[in-house]
Amino acid sequence: MNPISNTQLLEALNWRYATKQFDAAKKISADTITALEESLILSASSFGLQPYRFLVVNDKAMREKLLPHTWGQRQVVDASHYLVFAGRTTMSEKEIDAFLKLTADTRGMSVETLKGYRGMMTGMLLADSFQPKVPHWAALQAYIALGNLLTSAAVLGVDACPIEGFVPAEYDKLLSLPEQGFASIVCCALGYRADTDKYATAKKVRAAKADLIKHI
Amino acid sequence: MNPISNTQLLEALNWRYATKQFDAAKKISADTITALEESLILSASSFGLQPYRFLVVNDKAMREKLLPHTWGQRQVVDASHYLVFAGRTTMSEKEIDAFLKLTADTRGMSVETLKGYRGMMTGMLLADSFQPKVPHWAALQAYIALGNLLTSAAVLGVDACPIEGFVPAEYDKLLSLPEQGFASIVCCALGYRADTDKYATAKKVRAAKADLIKHI
Repeated sequence: MNPISNTQLLEALNWRYATKQFDAAKKISADTITALEESLILSASSFGLQPYRFLVVNDKAMREKLLPHTWGQRQVVDASHYLVFAGRTTMSEKEIDAFLKLTADTRGMSVETLKGYRGMMTGMLLADSFQPKVPHWAALQAYIALGNLLTSAAVLGVDACPIEGFVPAEYDKLLSLPEQGFASIVCCALGYRADTDKYATAKKVRAAKADLIKHI
Repeated sequence: MNPISNTQLLEALNWRYATKQFDAAKKISADTITALEESLILSASSFGLQPYRFLVVNDKAMREKLLPHTWGQRQVVDASHYLVFAGRTTMSEKEIDAFLKLTADTRGMSVETLKGYRGMMTGMLLADSFQPKVPHWAALQAYIALGNLLTSAAVLGVDACPIEGFVPAEYDKLLSLPEQGFASIVCCALGYRADTDKYATAKKVRAAKADLIKHI
């Protein structure tokens, strides 16, 4: 483990901004997009269940179709890469048992030894009262991945724009998500800022530290 | 902007894990905790509204009080620092106008020029249909900050444990959050892993890339 300095982290986070104009000619290298995909895989999630999928939309025609359902925000088509985060809409024993098998296989243990963990998971996730909350729970986990991705991209010098302004129902239809048990949650464009993006140099607007962080 | 390498990022993210046992004797330096607080301030949020607060609970007695409402998870008391993320439960013109004033002041422009932006914000956030969704919306924004914090901590070599297993209503009471218009959302312990934490070396359990990331 070879940590970076506080200064280098804060430089990257100050450099980061929600990129409005991407340079359509600048593409993220294969190595770097692979690293960013890997960062998504390494995100923390509730119980480790990863109740989401990440769609990397490379198909130009599909991006053009998504554009009008994203209030015409050009990042959808201009950014080097465009990601849609999709979350599970339901959870059942099937997903839990698949995860427990994966855990047992990965760590060379028997599924039997994970019985207690299984009980905790099913007790929470399969409770009648929790079922309607599954999409919200999955969305929260996807947002951890989004926060991780934004910071990972920043420290690698890759620009990003998180996008909540889209029509989920239209995305779901175009990406055939409901039939797979998923729903679109949030999007993120990745690439490199255009020289003309005036927001790149706009002063960051942030609440005063004393209002935002309370020491108790 | 001085980016780090893909390898260095992935080393940090692979090193990261949800720390179960913290070394209670190892404290995060003032410089580093300040940098992590700054990373929270720099998090992306919907419209830039930062509809949350971060409580850094330093008071030992308060941490002891939170412990039983966190299923006895020792990270609450053993970690160097313990953060509670709180989100707004309602939004009104007051918060929006305060944000617009802050934007105008920060960027040296008049509030008048932000009229269009104001319309977009009030149109979405103050709609009757959106009011019941405010806590969920605020929670999503707080989870971006959580994802950012986990990655920021990892690249700085600071251990962390995100904690969803707590009783929000009890936290809210102890931290007097409702009377301030906030509710507890998620927690995060920060510090340094104990040598005895066997989870530090456990193999990571992650879905296969082909299952998690779909190229379209």
